[in-house]
Amino acid sequence: MIVVMRPGTTEQDVEEIVARLGQWGLKAHVSRGTERTVIGVIGERTEEVVRLASLQTVEQVVPVRRPYKLVSREFHPENTVIRVGRAAFGTGEVVMMPGPCAVESREQVMAVAELARDLGCPVLRGGAYKPRTSPYSFQGLGVEGLRILAEARERYGLAIITEAVDHESLKYVAEYADIVQIGTRNMQNFELLKAVGQIGRPVLLKRGMAATIDEWLMAAEYVAAHGNPDIILCERGIRTYEPKTRNTLDLSAVPVLKQLTHLPVVVDPSHATGQWSLVEPMALAAVAAGADGLLIEAHPNPAEALSDGPQSLNLPNLTHLVENVSRVAAALGRRL
Amino acid sequence: MIVVMRPGTTEQDVEEIVARLGQWGLKAHVSRGTERTVIGVIGERTEEVVRLASLQTVEQVVPVRRPYKLVSREFHPENTVIRVGRAAFGTGEVVMMPGPCAVESREQVMAVAELARDLGCPVLRGGAYKPRTSPYSFQGLGVEGLRILAEARERYGLAIITEAVDHESLKYVAEYADIVQIGTRNMQNFELLKAVGQIGRPVLLKRGMAATIDEWLMAAEYVAAHGNPDIILCERGIRTYEPKTRNTLDLSAVPVLKQLTHLPVVVDPSHATGQWSLVEPMALAAVAAGADGLLIEAHPNPAEALSDGPQSLNLPNLTHLVENVSRVAAALGRRL
Amino acid sequence: MIVVMRPGTTEQDVEEIVARLGQWGLKAHVSRGTERTVIGVIGERTEEVVRLASLQTVEQVVPVRRPYKLVSREFHPENTVIRVGRAAFGTGEVVMMPGPCAVESREQVMAVAELARDLGCPVLRGGAYKPRTSPYSFQGLGVEGLRILAEARERYGLAIITEAVDHESLKYVAEYADIVQIGTRNMQNFELLKAVGQIGRPVLLKRGMAATIDEWLMAAEYVAAHGNPDIILCERGIRTYEPKTRNTLDLSAVPVLKQLTHLPVVVDPSHATGQWSLVEPMALAAVAAGADGLLIEAHPNPAEALSDGPQSLNLPNLTHLVENVSRVAAALGRRL
Amino acid sequence: MIVVMRPGTTEQDVEEIVARLGQWGLKAHVSRGTERTVIGVIGERTEEVVRLASLQTVEQVVPVRRPYKLVSREFHPENTVIRVGRAAFGTGEVVMMPGPCAVESREQVMAVAELARDLGCPVLRGGAYKPRTSPYSFQGLGVEGLRILAEARERYGLAIITEAVDHESLKYVAEYADIVQIGTRNMQNFELLKAVGQIGRPVLLKRGMAATIDEWLMAAEYVAAHGNPDIILCERGIRTYEPKTRNTLDLSAVPVLKQLTHLPVVVDPSHATGQWSLVEPMALAAVAAGADGLLIEAHPNPAEALSDGPQSLNLPNLTHLVENVSRVAAALGRRL
Repeated sequence: MIVVMRPGTTEQDVEEIVARLGQWGLKAHVSRGTERTVIGVIGERTEEVVRLASLQTVEQVVPVRRPYKLVSREFHPENTVIRVGRAAFGTGEVVMMPGPCAVESREQVMAVAELARDLGCPVLRGGAYKPRTSPYSFQGLGVEGLRILAEARERYGLAIITEAVDHESLKYVAEYADIVQIGTRNMQNFELLKAVGQIGRPVLLKRGMAATIDEWLMAAEYVAAHGNPDIILCERGIRTYEPKTRNTLDLSAVPVLKQLTHLPVVVDPSHATGQWSLVEPMALAAVAAGADGLLIEAHPNPAEALSDGPQSLNLPNLTHLVENVSRVAAALGRRL
Repeated sequence: MIVVMRPGTTEQDVEEIVARLGQWGLKAHVSRGTERTVIGVIGERTEEVVRLASLQTVEQVVPVRRPYKLVSREFHPENTVIRVGRAAFGTGEVVMMPGPCAVESREQVMAVAELARDLGCPVLRGGAYKPRTSPYSFQGLGVEGLRILAEARERYGLAIITEAVDHESLKYVAEYADIVQIGTRNMQNFELLKAVGQIGRPVLLKRGMAATIDEWLMAAEYVAAHGNPDIILCERGIRTYEPKTRNTLDLSAVPVLKQLTHLPVVVDPSHATGQWSLVEPMALAAVAAGADGLLIEAHPNPAEALSDGPQSLNLPNLTHLVENVSRVAAALGRRL
Repeated sequence: MIVVMRPGTTEQDVEEIVARLGQWGLKAHVSRGTERTVIGVIGERTEEVVRLASLQTVEQVVPVRRPYKLVSREFHPENTVIRVGRAAFGTGEVVMMPGPCAVESREQVMAVAELARDLGCPVLRGGAYKPRTSPYSFQGLGVEGLRILAEARERYGLAIITEAVDHESLKYVAEYADIVQIGTRNMQNFELLKAVGQIGRPVLLKRGMAATIDEWLMAAEYVAAHGNPDIILCERGIRTYEPKTRNTLDLSAVPVLKQLTHLPVVVDPSHATGQWSLVEPMALAAVAAGADGLLIEAHPNPAEALSDGPQSLNLPNLTHLVENVSRVAAALGRRL
Repeated sequence: MIVVMRPGTTEQDVEEIVARLGQWGLKAHVSRGTERTVIGVIGERTEEVVRLASLQTVEQVVPVRRPYKLVSREFHPENTVIRVGRAAFGTGEVVMMPGPCAVESREQVMAVAELARDLGCPVLRGGAYKPRTSPYSFQGLGVEGLRILAEARERYGLAIITEAVDHESLKYVAEYADIVQIGTRNMQNFELLKAVGQIGRPVLLKRGMAATIDEWLMAAEYVAAHGNPDIILCERGIRTYEPKTRNTLDLSAVPVLKQLTHLPVVVDPSHATGQWSLVEPMALAAVAAGADGLLIEAHPNPAEALSDGPQSLNLPNLTHLVENVSRVAAALGRRL
């Protein structure tokens, strides 16, 4: 930490800070510049040092260290590799995870699952518990939906990823799913993060709709600190002023995360754009930017979908997307 | 709803849409303009109509009605009045709710509570369960903190507002608190919203950090739809690109909400600005903009606060703020 | 400036940086922490130091000083007072500046000017050169508009503020206006800023639609550095994700600026909100937050306005606003 | 346009609107829904209809048509192809445009130009007039810089792109450059847009830092409406709350624009990210998303660059980038 004093502070003001730091067991390194005095703090007690900003003599407190540890690449330089069924996240493979937004019926799920298998995609997505903006919208099939997903796993040899929305649903999801998804609205539901820290299954943690990359990594740190190191980060668009897309897909987050963390990073272009015709170009871009995988919404009949139809690919378009993703991956020495 | 067709659509495309609408029991009103054909939809099935946007022939689907009902002023033109202890939200009164960010000790709480009572403030705030960005930060005293708050209530005749973060903490909070706060990170924790819909106590619902006003009202609609009409909305700053304040306090939301909803609206200038020296001017501005009350962080010794010290007022500054709020309120024919 | 080295940098890496700083005439103060080495730079050559961020061994370069000088309160602790006609910005007075968005006709301007005079407002606003989003929109009356404004000045004893959009219009505006306005889209039109630095008249500099406070002050620094110290800053809303208002009025910017700069700060609630019914509450809030004045759009017949009708007050509403602003100002020991 | 009436409006209110529309020569199509009456407006006078939003009886006015014409794909379905030297924008080719941020010296420019030629890049970028946030920063070499660029053109057979910042610099830039760049801060400098509408050379129009896609296309419409159809759009990052990158590169804008307009779209990953190590992944992503070309900052010695060193590639990294871009382009059936 660095404490920047206001201009015009006296020797005594500086000594008062140094004394406080001493009480917290921290050493101070005072540097008097032409216009500001700066105090370098040596030691770890970030929480305490931040409080100094409430003093009238202090202009700002600047952190120099990342606030997260377990998930930082500094702490763990090698990529974390997460193996689920035939998929291996973090190895250069592009893990394809197509599926419907919400599980609506056995037929719907099987239609997508069969195509996913045929296209060589190792994971099937589908929501059984749906966090919906309106209390009057379809809220998901619950356990019945999980059973349909489990049947698709048996039949087509796919791993299953599905969302948990609270402690209650987490119990069932952890029983049926191969990967537990935590959605964008729950990224800072810290009690839920603590709970998924203890389930012994990989977690896919979506970025909060307006979360900074640091806050996102702190959310992952919650999961890791509570015992679960198998975390996949998923960029799904952030909130901006631009109305032409539902959110703005922040693909720069992919290479930024690759520098900061050892965790795999995947991208969901369907929720980000909100429009099916933008999904393929953004899926290709995500892979070119270095994403470890893709969540893609697909539906046998998007115009009848109970949730997010406008952003769902129909099955021919899903096939087209997978073929092109495969080409871009190969060009960069990667594979599906 | 209005369905705008793409340019170049044929008579048959339009008929296909009209037929679908008919299947859903909806009437269509077709209007052929110079460059676009527009279909006015008469009837209520919003969810279904939205799906039409996935069709190639449809350019956009435009809602003309608010998505919320119970909380809309259209549905309920009179202000909702919520009485808690000596406070009455929604009557023109400015309800002052000072207190520490986190309950840290009996002494700390009593010091603020005593001053609050002396200044005529009817409600005391204080967190016993703290959602913290870092898993390594102080997470609150839990039930012990609630007991300290309850003691302050007895001793100083104040109503208590404190936050619940999940089903578990909600049980205890609902037992001890007069108003249950749902924090910014939980605004779209729909399972928690459903639960507070059933507790029979007033709820203060903070705006999500990047929530639109419509999403916020939809979150309130969840609470109302699950049985609880006593909802106080709290503006606490939104996420923007400006780094000089922690968030950007969106005071325009106050008069916007006064038009859209009958619910009371209060403001938290402490979390919004993140800096104690900005709290008083923004508190005054909030009252001038029409806010029904203020949440204000105050601490006997901000530099020792375990949470959010830099934004906490010390007690002399709290006194100064209350006096000036009182003057602005009086100038506009209101009172504390 | 502070240079934070990456973890794992060697003694030699640090020496290389220290040597470069030495070549630029700067002293280095090296501080070795538990996880990072930090170099405090003593001296002024900000531009050069920033370049160090391109080195592989450097994690970040943190400025500790404000980038602006002439406009900073540190450099000039007393408020700048700007007197124009009967108005005095920066003295605690609330300077009222009502008027139409665009000058459309003699009758229109005189109607607003007469009321402004009657209400005791010292300044009249009105645009003769209009920067419009669409090339097909009304672009203003130009010099003819300026002449109408000048006539209103003579007749009603008001000072005139109007916008210049390029070097050409600036020539005429500087001849006719008492205060030259630089609009939000030109806040970083640096060539225009240099030119208004030389006109010898007060300048009102609107905040860019997505400008940070620091960038805004740097734009003011351009004007000051080119010779013009009489700058009035005008907050007019920033771009955010919230669609219910045209922009989000960032009133926190008012007290933030009061700390950082000695320049007067006014607020334009009409452009910020884009909706006439929100203008009065936000005008009152602006004054309560400490604004030195208000730009208010008013029109004798908003539904016929050639520009921005939906956000213009009609004349009875303008009267109502001025009366309430006067009450809030008085409550805080200020006057119109 | 669609006019949505407030709930509770009377027959007479509706007739008043219909009468006004009639005065403007517009036909009305009234549709009475269960909760709102909606008036479809048939005809073109957008400006007038928008004013209706200032009436108390009108809830909102919804446009159904794009506000731009000349630049819309609807108006001109085929891609605009712009040929400059060996480059052809809009044909599927990926036009590479590397070069230094600012022209600093003959040696610097020739070093990059020689490599650009060797790598097969057809265009060289370089700034002679630099819009800088600080008045104390290097402002460019001006005409001398243009002469150096012209010499590089002769020597290496490259087309030149460089920025104009006002009418004055535009005169010189139009004389020396093959493509005139309008920078992000000038995207809504409408007087400058009118001027570049008349220069008879291709224009590269960068997106404003917080411009919506519609505003950007309206800025292009200014150029087109003043006579210049050869416009290249350049996405360069938008302002968001995320501090890890200088701006957030909005790659979704590429496929969105491909739907809305016939103009070519290129991407500048250097300014967007502000960090050289992120430039290559985002360049690859841009091509995968469908960009027609790339502006890439490169410098023989980034740590000595007078402007934007931290985001400049050194020459080996530029070579690496061009090779990988070439692979991704080929995978998608495109070429450099």
